This record gives sequence, C-alpha cells and structure tokens, in this order.
Amino acid sequence: MSRWQPNARGRLEEAALQLYASRGFDATTVAEIAERAGLTERTFFRHFTDKREVLFSGQTALTESMVAAVAGQPTGTAPIDAVGAALRAAGMAIGGRRDSARQRQAVIAANTGLQERELIKLAALGVALTDALRARGEAELTARLTAEAGVAVFKVAFERWIGTDDDAELVDVIAEAIDELRAVASA
Amino acid sequence: MSRWQPNARGRLEEAALQLYASRGFDATTVAEIAERAGLTERTFFRHFTDKREVLFSGQTALTESMVAAVAGQPTGTAPIDAVGAALRAAGMAIGGRRDSARQRQAVIAANTGLQERELIKLAALGVALTDALRARGEAELTARLTAEAGVAVFKVAFERWIGTDDDAELVDVIAEAIDELRAVASA
Repeated sequence: MSRWQPNARGRLEEAALQLYASRGFDATTVAEIAERAGLTERTFFRHFTDKREVLFSGQTALTESMVAAVAGQPTGTAPIDAVGAALRAAGMAIGGRRDSARQRQAVIAANTGLQERELIKLAALGVALTDALRARGEAELTARLTAEAGVAVFKVAFERWIGTDDDAELVDVIAEAIDELRAVASA
Repeated sequence: MSRWQPNARGRLEEAALQLYASRGFDATTVAEIAERAGLTERTFFRHFTDKREVLFSGQTALTESMVAAVAGQPTGTAPIDAVGAALRAAGMAIGGRRDSARQRQAVIAANTGLQERELIKLAALGVALTDALRARGEAELTARLTAEAGVAVFKVAFERWIGTDDDAELVDVIAEAIDELRAVASA
C-alpha cells in the first residue's frame, strides 16, 4: 500500500458509517473500518482517537465555523441575527450531505451512549455560542438565551431536514425555523 | 426498626445528596445511603431502582406536572403561553429548594455520566412538551420549536437561579427569561 492515501479521512468516515449502520456501532472494530477503507489501523489512528470520534469530529469543526460566523458579524448586528448567521454557516457546511447525515443519525439513535455524546456536543455548542455572543458585548442573559434558542432551532431544523423526503435545503429549513421562533415568541 | 418509616423517600434523597456531595457519586454505596437515612437497603429499593435514580426521579415528576400544565390551558392559549405555564409550574415545584437543587447540580457537574443523563432527561422533556402541544392541535414545527425553546428557557433560568446569591424566586427568573426570549426574537 502506498504511503500516500488520497482522502484517507473521508474514506475512513464512509467505511465506518457503513459498518456502524450494517452491523451496529458496538460490534464494529477499528481493524474492520481500516480494512474496508483499504487503509491500515495506523492510518486510522492518525486521523481519529477512537471509533466514536469518527462520528463526532465533524461536530467540532462545525462548532468552530459557527463561532467564527458569530464573531464575523458587523458591530450592531442583533444577537439573534448573529446566531442566525452561525446556523446558516452550519447549514451550508452540512447541506450537501443529507444521506450521510441521515445514516449517522440512525447510528446514534440506536445507541444510548452515542445519544448522550451527541447531547453533550450540543450543550457544548450552546456554551461556545454564548461565549461568542458575550465577546460581542451582549449581556449575560441575552447571550445565554440567544445561544440556547439557536441550538434549539438547529436541533429542530436538522431533525426536520433529515426526516423529510423532499429536496428542501438545510439552510432553508433553518430559515423557516428561525421565522417560526420569531412568530411563536411574538404571539 | 419500625416498619413505618415517615418520609422514607425524602430521607433517602437527603442522605444520598449529602454522601454524593461529600465523597462523590461513584464512591457512594446504596448501603451507606440507607444507613445514613436510618433505613434498610430493602427500603431504598422500594423507592428507587438504583443510586442514580435518586437524582433523577424528581425530574420525571416535574415533566409530568409540566405536561399537565400545558394540557390544562384554555383552548386558544398561544403555544408560548402554554409552555410558559408549564415552566411556571416547574418553578413553583422546585422553587423552595434552592440549596438541594444547587447540591444536586454540583454532584451532576462532577460526573460525566450524570451530565449525560441530565441532558437525556432534558431532551425527553422537550419531546414530552412537543407531544403536549401537538395534542392541543399545534402544527408540528410550532409544537417542536416552542417546546425546545421552552426547554432552553428553563435550562438558562435554572442555571441563573442556582448561580446567584440573591433571593430571586425561580418563577421570577423564569418569567424574566421568557421576556428576554421575546425581546431577542423580535429584534
């Protein structure tokens, strides 16, 4: 096997998702993932600390891009709009991969430990967005609540997006959910 | 020991919280909890399935009272107001026990497994409130989003309430958070 492995990370992710989906997360070994991807275990561990991280490393990158989106808004942007920009950034990043998002979600839904991990990551996203809003000078309650409402919007929009069969874009589903939050809160 | 044990459940809860706080959740045994409460292990297991449930059984009762509050609102109540009623019900139920709420939260914060459990319970609260709103005839997106926004408000208000040293009542902190959500979403 050549030492140069084009898109090793992507191949490992794809192989892992397929194995988790077909035989379950617990029953899949790193050796099997590497073999299916045509790579070595050593290469696997160059990209991921363990087989769980394959499912969650994308979320870390996503949180970073959302925080950057909040930070990048012009001074004077309303906090809900700054969080809206973060959600759009996430929507653009995930949007083209509904099939793998759906497969990943099915794997997580089948395993309590993974569900717990997913919720921990969402809670961490809420904290990261709170910090990003606080850094823009928003008051504590405003920052905390806008961030958590943003996470709620993201969670609901993402669920809807992977649950529907039409061709809706994630960014549009997110925009619809933000509009609905505004409508609900102003009732 | 008499078979009649006044407030056995409350005594077990208090003993468990004290032990979890002083020596850690993992290091505490059911036998120690029962002994400290002046009761038997048998009595413990009549009230709780395991030592983790001591921390979370209250949340189950809380979810039930919140769902009942949503269901009990007059026809035509705006969904955000129905959820507001649920949050007030929770605030009234927890409100008088800030010290034990704070102690419980510190125990949970010190243990990843308990944090995950807490987040699973909060997610379940979101689902239960969604179902309660759907049963009132609210559209799917409205029900899901209002419920999750309600959970976000509850989470933020509860954090603030256990984190402050003033005498604020939980119901008032919740009302302030709902007002802030309205303000944020209408910006």
